[in-house]
Amino acid sequence: MKIHNYSAGPCILPQSVMQKAAEAVINYNNTGLSILEMSHRSKEFVDVMDRSVALVKELLSVPEGYEVLFLQGGASSQFYMSALNFLHKNGKAAYINTGTWSAKAIKEAKLLGEIEEIASSKDKKFNYIPKDYVVPNDVNYLHYTTNNTIFGTQFKHVPETDVRLICDMSSDIMSQEVDISKYDLIYAGAQKNLGPAGATLIIVKCDALGKSGRTIPSILDYQLHVAKESMYNTPPCFSIFTCMLTMEWLKELGGVKEIEKRNKAKASLLYTEIDRNSLFEGTAAVEDRSIMNPTFVLKNDALNADFLSKSIEVGINGIKGHRSVGGFRASMYNALEIESVQVLVDLMKEFERVNE
Amino acid sequence: MKIHNYSAGPCILPQSVMQKAAEAVINYNNTGLSILEMSHRSKEFVDVMDRSVALVKELLSVPEGYEVLFLQGGASSQFYMSALNFLHKNGKAAYINTGTWSAKAIKEAKLLGEIEEIASSKDKKFNYIPKDYVVPNDVNYLHYTTNNTIFGTQFKHVPETDVRLICDMSSDIMSQEVDISKYDLIYAGAQKNLGPAGATLIIVKCDALGKSGRTIPSILDYQLHVAKESMYNTPPCFSIFTCMLTMEWLKELGGVKEIEKRNKAKASLLYTEIDRNSLFEGTAAVEDRSIMNPTFVLKNDALNADFLSKSIEVGINGIKGHRSVGGFRASMYNALEIESVQVLVDLMKEFERVNE
Repeated sequence: MKIHNYSAGPCILPQSVMQKAAEAVINYNNTGLSILEMSHRSKEFVDVMDRSVALVKELLSVPEGYEVLFLQGGASSQFYMSALNFLHKNGKAAYINTGTWSAKAIKEAKLLGEIEEIASSKDKKFNYIPKDYVVPNDVNYLHYTTNNTIFGTQFKHVPETDVRLICDMSSDIMSQEVDISKYDLIYAGAQKNLGPAGATLIIVKCDALGKSGRTIPSILDYQLHVAKESMYNTPPCFSIFTCMLTMEWLKELGGVKEIEKRNKAKASLLYTEIDRNSLFEGTAAVEDRSIMNPTFVLKNDALNADFLSKSIEVGINGIKGHRSVGGFRASMYNALEIESVQVLVDLMKEFERVNE
Repeated sequence: MKIHNYSAGPCILPQSVMQKAAEAVINYNNTGLSILEMSHRSKEFVDVMDRSVALVKELLSVPEGYEVLFLQGGASSQFYMSALNFLHKNGKAAYINTGTWSAKAIKEAKLLGEIEEIASSKDKKFNYIPKDYVVPNDVNYLHYTTNNTIFGTQFKHVPETDVRLICDMSSDIMSQEVDISKYDLIYAGAQKNLGPAGATLIIVKCDALGKSGRTIPSILDYQLHVAKESMYNTPPCFSIFTCMLTMEWLKELGGVKEIEKRNKAKASLLYTEIDRNSLFEGTAAVEDRSIMNPTFVLKNDALNADFLSKSIEVGINGIKGHRSVGGFRASMYNALEIESVQVLVDLMKEFERVNE
């Protein structure tokens, strides 16, 4: 049975990527060696790294003056690392709190200086994106999380401000076009649209670095990683290689512009059904709905177990909502095809027919 | 042609592991899902994590009171993290400097307190393991690196001391039996004897934690990772899975005791030839020679390029010495078979015959 993988992350990747990754685990490019046993200093792997960086630059139209890194640690490591590099000694930073991930970023940054939470949607269980806020001029940066996997909300506009912008794009990077020039730092764990868990993408504006006045440990220093071209320490080679394959797939498909169109079509199909179906309702404010992670509930909680079990019967994997909020979440990352969304929509219709 | 992979890391892993890893990339355990696209919270992956931890405990006879973690970042992240967790505020720590890796550990620890380098082999280009040193009683811990990949030296005895012991075992973990109870913290990047790059093994004595008096960022806090069972953030799932496969292979082979026997036989075969052959000489002090990374040179430098090119002709990969020291290095990790060592030894004999 075909599995429709709605997992929130690690998540679905293209089948062709799995195939190529598996082949490389056996024999990389006819070298007689597995990608897993190759030195990261080998010509072969240096090529993988270079090509991965080039693909990020091409797919996201990264302007001059930015560097692309592939590090370890995930976005959770970036919560602290970004503040350590950008929050000046005795400085101040502004954060927008849109739920679990931004709250974690705030917590770690607070270890380093004064953090002003300039907006929060906590009052309504993070079911919307705050819009009325003022970014102080005296902060070192503004930090926000573009897409909130747990609550199903997503920024539709880049906050307007003259201060530096730092953004956690873990769950919607490469799902839609973005103007990189507005940011000083973008970070993203790989395990959504980029590749398997274990790699972390960083896009950083070089002239923004080295201004914090802090002594930064090597492993947490963007400047050092830039100087060493992501090879200060052994990189997560296989994860980066698989990111490269996924980006090649995306490029062949038509790039970010094309995938954005497809992602919007998938989201529209599902949200239309959520709104139409008398049994279900969406949980996020309509104007802030995430294209990546639609969240919804059954109006009648008693039907939850039955719907979940029926979803599994038709091959749907991973639509149980996050353990902290319940309900359902259909994560629809780049590699999920619209046919899989149709299977979910059909199930919702059938479920309405039987239970109404 | 069969490749004899002497790469210093990432390095050779068992062929059967590559095969199983590749299969799991296509379809993990008949779930219809790739190991790359499974949630780390899925029953399947939680089982992988649990089994990996159990295998470490079994293979290394980890005593009660210790926890096993799989994190990201490699040993290079541990240089700073270990000091942050173990070096008290206003405290002092002792380090033994045996070359590049311990020097890096010292550099990062110095950001946090007073570091006493109680012994160093720098006077002889790190070609031996210091033996005459006194460990002060007033330090929070003693740190050393068991095996030095670049200089081909290895500790043959655990330093005798009553202070806490912290050890970087990246390049010889699971190659030989070790008394875990002597240590408070052991860390090791996976990419030698454990699996592919991207995972980091930590073995930590729980009652040694929480005593530094510091506020520790979440991602760098062993106590938090222990509490979250290595799931504070998304773990490097595929790397951990492949570590599990490698440990299953090791267990089936007869465990660490058996591999130690094999590793010693391989080392003996190569060192005997290095000592016998009139063209070559070893670079490390005989009593401190590494079982994992024999280093040697041609007495006549002018022959280097020819020997390297002949080694490639017979399928030998990766014996060029580290760029910082030159010469040759034959990294012989667990998965390298003695047949591959014989190929190198035969080549050395033939090279002598031709060039003498």
